[in-house]
Amino acid sequence: MLSQVYWGGFQPLKQRLLPWVQCIAISRSERIQPSATRHVRSWSNIPFITVPLNRTHGKSFAHRSELKHAKRIVVKLGSAVVTRGDECGLALGRLASIVEQVSVLQNQGREMMLVTSGAVAFGKQRLRHEILLSQSVRQALHSGQNQLKEMILVTNLDFHDEQKRRNLNGTLHELLRMNIVPIVNTNDAVVPPAEPNSDLQGVNVISVKDNDSLAARLAVEMKTDLLIVLSDVEGLFDSPPGSDDAKLIDIFYPGDQQSVTFGTKSRVGMGGMEAKVKAALWALQGGTSVVIANGTHPKVSGHVITDIVEGKKVGTFFSEVKPAGPTVEQQGEMARSGGRMLATLEPEQRAEIIHHLADLLTDQRDEILLANKKDLEEAEGRLAAPLLKRLSLSTSKLNSLAIGLRQIAASSQDSVGRVLRRTRIAKNLELEQVTVPIGVLLVIFESRPDCLPQVAALAIASGNGLLLKGGKEAAHSNRILHLLTQEALSIHGVKEAVQLVNTREEVEDLCRLDKMIDLIIPRGSSQLVRDIQKAAKGIPVMGHSEGICHMYVDSEASVDKATRLVRDSKCEYPAACNALETLLIHRDLLRTPLFDQLIDMLRVEQVKIHAGPKFASYLTFSPSEVKSLRTEYGDLELCIEVVDSVQDAIDHIHKYGSSHTDVIVTENEQTAEFFLQHVDSACVFWNASTRFSDGYRFGLGAEVGISTSRIHARGPVGLEGLLTTKWLLRGQDHVVSDFSEHGSLKYLHENLPVPQRNTN
Amino acid sequence: MLSQVYWGGFQPLKQRLLPWVQCIAISRSERIQPSATRHVRSWSNIPFITVPLNRTHGKSFAHRSELKHAKRIVVKLGSAVVTRGDECGLALGRLASIVEQVSVLQNQGREMMLVTSGAVAFGKQRLRHEILLSQSVRQALHSGQNQLKEMILVTNLDFHDEQKRRNLNGTLHELLRMNIVPIVNTNDAVVPPAEPNSDLQGVNVISVKDNDSLAARLAVEMKTDLLIVLSDVEGLFDSPPGSDDAKLIDIFYPGDQQSVTFGTKSRVGMGGMEAKVKAALWALQGGTSVVIANGTHPKVSGHVITDIVEGKKVGTFFSEVKPAGPTVEQQGEMARSGGRMLATLEPEQRAEIIHHLADLLTDQRDEILLANKKDLEEAEGRLAAPLLKRLSLSTSKLNSLAIGLRQIAASSQDSVGRVLRRTRIAKNLELEQVTVPIGVLLVIFESRPDCLPQVAALAIASGNGLLLKGGKEAAHSNRILHLLTQEALSIHGVKEAVQLVNTREEVEDLCRLDKMIDLIIPRGSSQLVRDIQKAAKGIPVMGHSEGICHMYVDSEASVDKATRLVRDSKCEYPAACNALETLLIHRDLLRTPLFDQLIDMLRVEQVKIHAGPKFASYLTFSPSEVKSLRTEYGDLELCIEVVDSVQDAIDHIHKYGSSHTDVIVTENEQTAEFFLQHVDSACVFWNASTRFSDGYRFGLGAEVGISTSRIHARGPVGLEGLLTTKWLLRGQDHVVSDFSEHGSLKYLHENLPVPQRNTN
Repeated sequence: MLSQVYWGGFQPLKQRLLPWVQCIAISRSERIQPSATRHVRSWSNIPFITVPLNRTHGKSFAHRSELKHAKRIVVKLGSAVVTRGDECGLALGRLASIVEQVSVLQNQGREMMLVTSGAVAFGKQRLRHEILLSQSVRQALHSGQNQLKEMILVTNLDFHDEQKRRNLNGTLHELLRMNIVPIVNTNDAVVPPAEPNSDLQGVNVISVKDNDSLAARLAVEMKTDLLIVLSDVEGLFDSPPGSDDAKLIDIFYPGDQQSVTFGTKSRVGMGGMEAKVKAALWALQGGTSVVIANGTHPKVSGHVITDIVEGKKVGTFFSEVKPAGPTVEQQGEMARSGGRMLATLEPEQRAEIIHHLADLLTDQRDEILLANKKDLEEAEGRLAAPLLKRLSLSTSKLNSLAIGLRQIAASSQDSVGRVLRRTRIAKNLELEQVTVPIGVLLVIFESRPDCLPQVAALAIASGNGLLLKGGKEAAHSNRILHLLTQEALSIHGVKEAVQLVNTREEVEDLCRLDKMIDLIIPRGSSQLVRDIQKAAKGIPVMGHSEGICHMYVDSEASVDKATRLVRDSKCEYPAACNALETLLIHRDLLRTPLFDQLIDMLRVEQVKIHAGPKFASYLTFSPSEVKSLRTEYGDLELCIEVVDSVQDAIDHIHKYGSSHTDVIVTENEQTAEFFLQHVDSACVFWNASTRFSDGYRFGLGAEVGISTSRIHARGPVGLEGLLTTKWLLRGQDHVVSDFSEHGSLKYLHENLPVPQRNTN
Repeated sequence: MLSQVYWGGFQPLKQRLLPWVQCIAISRSERIQPSATRHVRSWSNIPFITVPLNRTHGKSFAHRSELKHAKRIVVKLGSAVVTRGDECGLALGRLASIVEQVSVLQNQGREMMLVTSGAVAFGKQRLRHEILLSQSVRQALHSGQNQLKEMILVTNLDFHDEQKRRNLNGTLHELLRMNIVPIVNTNDAVVPPAEPNSDLQGVNVISVKDNDSLAARLAVEMKTDLLIVLSDVEGLFDSPPGSDDAKLIDIFYPGDQQSVTFGTKSRVGMGGMEAKVKAALWALQGGTSVVIANGTHPKVSGHVITDIVEGKKVGTFFSEVKPAGPTVEQQGEMARSGGRMLATLEPEQRAEIIHHLADLLTDQRDEILLANKKDLEEAEGRLAAPLLKRLSLSTSKLNSLAIGLRQIAASSQDSVGRVLRRTRIAKNLELEQVTVPIGVLLVIFESRPDCLPQVAALAIASGNGLLLKGGKEAAHSNRILHLLTQEALSIHGVKEAVQLVNTREEVEDLCRLDKMIDLIIPRGSSQLVRDIQKAAKGIPVMGHSEGICHMYVDSEASVDKATRLVRDSKCEYPAACNALETLLIHRDLLRTPLFDQLIDMLRVEQVKIHAGPKFASYLTFSPSEVKSLRTEYGDLELCIEVVDSVQDAIDHIHKYGSSHTDVIVTENEQTAEFFLQHVDSACVFWNASTRFSDGYRFGLGAEVGISTSRIHARGPVGLEGLLTTKWLLRGQDHVVSDFSEHGSLKYLHENLPVPQRNTN
């Protein structure tokens, strides 16, 4: 085993190297070429990325979203990452997952290097442990296709010796060229004493005073794109972690001269950390981007490196370029305070803003269509025709959008500040429950730019702050529509209440801002809703991912009505979530004229029929049997099943439905009422099409969406779904002790009249 | 390195062993004695458990909660666990975490054995890899205190040879005695062909036809308490995974003759799985408990083994004993259907049930107090005095409980089925929004058994199904109170609507049943609420974990009112969540009689004062400065801070408050209204004590709790917080296509009158 290791005296490229740097070179599997013909198996959920092979080095990345283009990456592992928290040896699981991540990234065609401070952590342990470690690491990287190449252990180098520096550089380049991942093991014990850090500009003057500056030095010398520094600190904080205001700094600009603190949330550590910041800044000036993050947290350590490279908000990102706009956190704060101002306006003022926005949509039509044309041109050939259609705006679309906005303005009059309940608790002590906005909404929408003014109008009408996250493909259109929205808002000085989030921000990152966002509303495909529901951590999501609607045709149904209702429910717009998916037919109707007429209609309408198991058993020649009774076809396909009774229908709906919309067709009022009372869905109808399940058709004024949640709003949601309540209590000097058993006062709890809701 | 490995011909205990079993023995750190004097560092979050050293083997465990008593455990790792999904070698990260878990369990004083089918997975790879693997494993287990002992590689064994079997047995026992974790590496390639599995009863007749039966055989021979079989299947399903009804079977009783399927959710695999079940059943009959679980899922593989030993619901648990009661899943279904029946009763019938329960509480007083006495006796010496007090019931407590129940019955009349909105959509097409129960509630409560009838009454009044999870310490009391609740329910045939969950069920497991539970309500300490909020996956939690209430004393406040209101808010019951925590004083009041009177009162009431930074800067000798302005003292302590204006007070409240209850004290109505409109909290008061923030004091009839959520219920929550709505649409044969642009009908959307809420 050790015969493969060259001890000391090793001279790669015929030269002598690094005195205190131990290099362990590991083979990496054959570089995957960015060719679609090669099938890549990936056990990570990060997609295969074609890394440009010849990125010009010299300028650090301006934004996290660009980190995925990093070609050469140095990962520096602090002692706390390498060792277990209980001081009982190696953190084997953590190390293994780091190695797996490095392996994934390298197999994407990147050039990975690892720097560990292993010698510090294991100083007192035997050398054998390090050999074991290196074997495990090699083992993981060795993915079955390639050979273990060699292990190099080098001794005696002085970083201040120009010749030796060049040697190291040359060796590492040679290793990278050979598809090998070098592991540079630094040893603090023999590091030369610190020198004054006189000039951060020059490569040659940095003192090698700790492992972080060594990593920075190596990274810059090797023209690395990205240096990831993992230790047990979260990153930079704007005030001491644990204090009231401490926030992790997402992006650190050296130019800002921010006051920063390092640390985990539970612990302030300023000691060796200053050096870490200096090293990071130095690397940044050398053209290498830097991310400092926590590599020890059990929940993230399995994907912290790949997350950083994917551009996720992990730790602190050092950037020389300060983007022109505010950060998403600042936008969240602006939306919060802007929303609070909006909420205190008079209802007429909010309506005025929306009317003004409607005017702007028609007045500024040419500019809007011009911006939209740019989006369409850029999307041409990259998006499928239906998507292009959704992306495209037109004069008539803008006109009907303006009409919709004026309807929202009308319905906004009676939303915020409506008194729901009034109670006299005691003499001169009156309680009021009033509607107030929820707070800050995050609306995530795909392609359709017409979503933006509509959603903005809903937020304005309900007095909520709004963060809008649109798709990249509609960037130009969204930008101008947002500008117009802000122009409308500014007539009452609340311009900042609606914020458009930069397209570079990851949806997943946004879904984690639970301190900032009160409700997420995804507007788009059911897949989008599912993804958001999964990603949202501790923030409620309003929406439904499934609409499995049933229609039960009772034994006492009218033939014509049933046919009419089934046709409208299934065929009028089969892609809608409120379209019919499963038809339940009473057993007695089989082989009756009603049944024949229904089947004839479905044949004429070219609806493909799937037979439920009971239905299939009644037929000699049955259509294809369903795989699942819980299918949303979203197309001209229909599942038919037979039931024995209204109770049987209800049981079927409870078992296989999605609690969206379910209908009974019958002439028997008693049966109908039984169905209406017993079916536990958001919408339950009698002799009406499933397609009525819609905010506009329900007369809610403006539709926010349809919710199948049982908490907060349920079914079609109007503006009320964007409201919550607060309790106002007006007293004189009322204290509860006066109401105690032997106190002087008694609770009255008289309900007081409440103004009735406006009628249209 | 290899000099430490004995190749072939090794004869532990002077004998020759197993032909196809490779044993790698690993030292384990010195057994930790169950003595409190020894400090145990643990990097896992599972607590140190004192494992009884002499559990008598012979009977398998009846319930998962007993698995923590397992002394000797065999973990069988399938090929899918050991290798990566991309067929590119070892799953190093997974293996490492398995080793770490085994290490944790062994350091708790258990005797761990590993069985891998490594040879199958690596058959085509070189032997060197296995050596590398074993070194990593050894490395992890080696926790700095002990020496690497030895590695054993044995050859040539026939399991059918009695002598050799005894040798294996003896060797393994000897290894365990020596504090060594044996790793038995099985090799399918040389396994003898299968024999008919003629008799499951006898140890000697099982054929060694696969690795699972080998593991089972080893487990039984070694008198193992628990066999954990990890592979890439979730466990046993009651129908093919992926089908509509497929459910993972939590506990499998061989006596049930259930029809079962094996598989992951995405994949049905029946092939080799029959053997897995047979092996498990065979082990069970031999007295070894078995859990089959997925060891490959990235989210759980880091703690799957420790989770199983802790009794969590992972995979399928094989038990010979079928507990008398239903499973928690069955209870959830009973609560759902019972709740639906409850919801369709008349309001008077629900009230009748509650009245009957109130009667039972007084009629059956002696029995209740007897059960409670049992709890108190068992808790004596184990619970602190305040907890014992909360646990204890008395005649007067039962009487006031009965009074409370009658109040709930009264307020239940107007809850379910109340019409909130009526709209005429078109002629003969009328829409109604009515209140309906949320569905199934899970209420988790600590010690206080009086919680049970109260919560049950709330659920009954609102027509919800209920799962109750009480503390172990109140088991006897809860049992009888639940029996009485069911007795009351049965007068209208809905006995099953309220279910008491077995004390053995883990709260964390319950919080994951998102298909079964619609809302979780924790009733207890704020720590309990925080824990539940963290554990709940996709189920909303109603409750608040913080109550940082503010009172702002304006420059125009009355001296006497301010003093009265501060005293009541802070001193009347400082532990309450609606007690005052931060007093904001207008700058102009400093050094006025009002200020002096306030401070005098606080001194008399012995309230400890903490100074905010601005307040401290005004004082020459200040009290201790606050560490955080965001503190809930819950005691006779108060933070005082100075503000410049009402706006400054509002900003402070928004920044440091918890949106619970905030109060202004002023004589200026305009300032008061500004505060009421602008403060964004659940409760905002003018000249009234913070302590009014309470469902009973608000006149909500029955208090469900206080919510600081901005979604669904907010502030003190009455029965309405347990309700949602559904939309009923009654038509004749209405279809939406009639309402299209050129259709025959137009939407009317007329608001129809709604019955006013009953006044008390």
